[in-house]
Amino acid sequence: MHVDLGNCLADVAEPGISREAVERLDEEVAAAHGRIEAGRDAGEFGYVALDLPERTDPGAIRDAVEPFAEAEAVLTVGIGGSALGASTVVDALADGGLGSGAGGPDGPGVAHHALDNVDPAHTRALLEALPLADTAVHVVSKSGTTAETLANFLVVREAMEAAGVDWAARTMVTTGESGPLRDLAERHDLPALSVPEGVPGRFSVLSAMGLVPAAIAGVDLEALLDGAAAEADRLTGSLFDCPAYAYGAVATALAGRGAVVNAMMPYAESLETFAEWFAQLWAESLGKEGLGQTPVRALGATDQHSQLQLYRAGRRNTLVSLVRPRERPACPVPDPGVEALSYLRQADLGELLDVEYEATEASLAAAGRPSVRVEVDRIDAAGLGGLLYGMEAACVMAAELFEVDAFDQPAVEWGKQAARDLLADADTERTRAVRGRSALPVE
Amino acid sequence: MHVDLGNCLADVAEPGISREAVERLDEEVAAAHGRIEAGRDAGEFGYVALDLPERTDPGAIRDAVEPFAEAEAVLTVGIGGSALGASTVVDALADGGLGSGAGGPDGPGVAHHALDNVDPAHTRALLEALPLADTAVHVVSKSGTTAETLANFLVVREAMEAAGVDWAARTMVTTGESGPLRDLAERHDLPALSVPEGVPGRFSVLSAMGLVPAAIAGVDLEALLDGAAAEADRLTGSLFDCPAYAYGAVATALAGRGAVVNAMMPYAESLETFAEWFAQLWAESLGKEGLGQTPVRALGATDQHSQLQLYRAGRRNTLVSLVRPRERPACPVPDPGVEALSYLRQADLGELLDVEYEATEASLAAAGRPSVRVEVDRIDAAGLGGLLYGMEAACVMAAELFEVDAFDQPAVEWGKQAARDLLADADTERTRAVRGRSALPVE
Repeated sequence: MHVDLGNCLADVAEPGISREAVERLDEEVAAAHGRIEAGRDAGEFGYVALDLPERTDPGAIRDAVEPFAEAEAVLTVGIGGSALGASTVVDALADGGLGSGAGGPDGPGVAHHALDNVDPAHTRALLEALPLADTAVHVVSKSGTTAETLANFLVVREAMEAAGVDWAARTMVTTGESGPLRDLAERHDLPALSVPEGVPGRFSVLSAMGLVPAAIAGVDLEALLDGAAAEADRLTGSLFDCPAYAYGAVATALAGRGAVVNAMMPYAESLETFAEWFAQLWAESLGKEGLGQTPVRALGATDQHSQLQLYRAGRRNTLVSLVRPRERPACPVPDPGVEALSYLRQADLGELLDVEYEATEASLAAAGRPSVRVEVDRIDAAGLGGLLYGMEAACVMAAELFEVDAFDQPAVEWGKQAARDLLADADTERTRAVRGRSALPVE
Repeated sequence: MHVDLGNCLADVAEPGISREAVERLDEEVAAAHGRIEAGRDAGEFGYVALDLPERTDPGAIRDAVEPFAEAEAVLTVGIGGSALGASTVVDALADGGLGSGAGGPDGPGVAHHALDNVDPAHTRALLEALPLADTAVHVVSKSGTTAETLANFLVVREAMEAAGVDWAARTMVTTGESGPLRDLAERHDLPALSVPEGVPGRFSVLSAMGLVPAAIAGVDLEALLDGAAAEADRLTGSLFDCPAYAYGAVATALAGRGAVVNAMMPYAESLETFAEWFAQLWAESLGKEGLGQTPVRALGATDQHSQLQLYRAGRRNTLVSLVRPRERPACPVPDPGVEALSYLRQADLGELLDVEYEATEASLAAAGRPSVRVEVDRIDAAGLGGLLYGMEAACVMAAELFEVDAFDQPAVEWGKQAARDLLADADTERTRAVRGRSALPVE
């Protein structure tokens, strides 16, 4: 991962950061890096996520998925970090950028779907469309009791049984050392992998939680983990030498100066899911104690025709993160044979996309709006591994600088408990809050 | 469309709006409604978008797509408003919520893809995956000169020729009265529809620009337009009687009180693309003159495990818009047969999703964070038509209250021109800005 902070400087942008402030920030980065390293050394919860590139055993994952080598489709049943990492890797590497389910020819052609919601219309439609006899099902839940995941799995299992498919031969799990899902795996002798100890779901992409569908799709797990390890090797106590920390530190500094929104805008269709994954990572890790920075998913060049007007002329509250690969495959544009379109002659689609990237970056700078350039060499296993790891390290650095805990999510507990109370039809403080809600209907 | 503003009130949320302020806002709405009606009566640019439900001729669209009645796939070639509306309608109604390309059984099974970017990897993968001989291509560009659209179309045409497919028999256009695309249609006798006069792309979903793929997929266009017309009939000079204006007015008022982010969070997979469509509408129409409100796409319940932590405990700068249908199809959860999961017994996935919706709404209110409830009766053609029209009217109202022009997008012109200059390898002020950009690389 490569980063360029030039367009975050105060002589370009408002909000921006002065060169003196960057120097002061660098001292904070050094101190924060020391805390991060101490956390990793002590095996502290969360910090150990940064050790995954060396802890994850790609051979164990490949062994577990071996029964599914011929699968046409993989169905991840999980929610949040239990599904988003898997989708991110498959969409970036194994799907030709077609989005889950289309199975592009640039990849091994295994379609990946995630049941990461409890929408009856969607679940039914997906189960009717899937070739169930040739689908591998990967059920992911750390506790083994996640309501959405278990409910979906029960529906999937019933659909397989109704279709005469031996569900136990088509299913594997990744879960904790105990719980209903672990019990199920033991009872039916399902392949089972363990969630990594001390790693919150949103930091788990580089473990079995994120890599099982990629393994079935034939992604080179070693290359992915090596790319991540290379980024890990670059973590050091100065933002001038560490792209990941540079990104995290400057994003935090700009948030403190008013850039409370971070528009993550990859110029590559295959990284659209990456932008979603980043949104979870950034929102849930940093959004606490009245702080944080709101991640917005965008896609270049498409969203130039959508959100760019706002980022260039709306409130001065947005940092735009412009991500791209330095190399793309070729796709020449044929001669239009029409004078009015002659400007397209001899172009390549990738050249067009890169020109739009640079024009957008310059147009933000010309309007005095901050942006940061994030590049990878190529969108391949190593490049993606580096990008994912780099953003995780950036996020941990940002949390250190905000002085919040990157690894908890206390604010979601209230709603989770309220949902359980409602399902149980209980009379609790929470269900009373739901039922007695303030109303001003406009029908 | 139904709206409930109860959780936007100051006695629930901060930022919030007092009941007295709602009364004052209602007076502003009355005046703004008068200006909107005057604009429509005078046929002014943009305002006439609100007349589309009665101006659009569904029969003409059906006639134009008649040659493609047997198509297995539809490929929209367009960008921004020329593609997003089409994807929104198909994904909501004709795709079983599977996302473009999967062709779910709840719809007529025609896969819809959009080439709305210039990514060489994606374009190549998609063209190799598509059944070109059975694909209908819809090229959409008002001017007929949009670089991304024309470049993609040239690539598509070449791929069809290389595959021995008669591209002219598989292609139709929607464009202005003149220009290269209109010329092409006349030279090759392609079915051609006209873009509606006076309607910016992001307000064009209820015209041929948004409805062609839906027509090929067999969506009931009359029901969709009738649903929109019913919402149009409810536009009136009081927010207490008009859900669309209530939504737009309160969102604006809260933005002025610090809710500079609007998280659009439908609890329905099939509305995920709707949230993207809303983001374009809201960002590009309102993001000007240092104002606006940053739209963030979210998806319930999935993003409860992602963004909710931020919205509940991060900065107090977000309005959460919770959208759902009042009726869903059934999908009962089978008995788990395990005591630890007994709380799932007798639930339905839709019940689970609705419980999460209500729990999330209450959890935001319990934390004093504003949310607004937006409901449709069902996600069917009429319900979607009403929702799309309602949000367009809400956006026009919001622009009136912000006192900005909803229908222009001046800030995107700089970048567009810079991209053209770069492609032409010209030496202009813009290309010099690109080439002389500020740099602070961290490699």
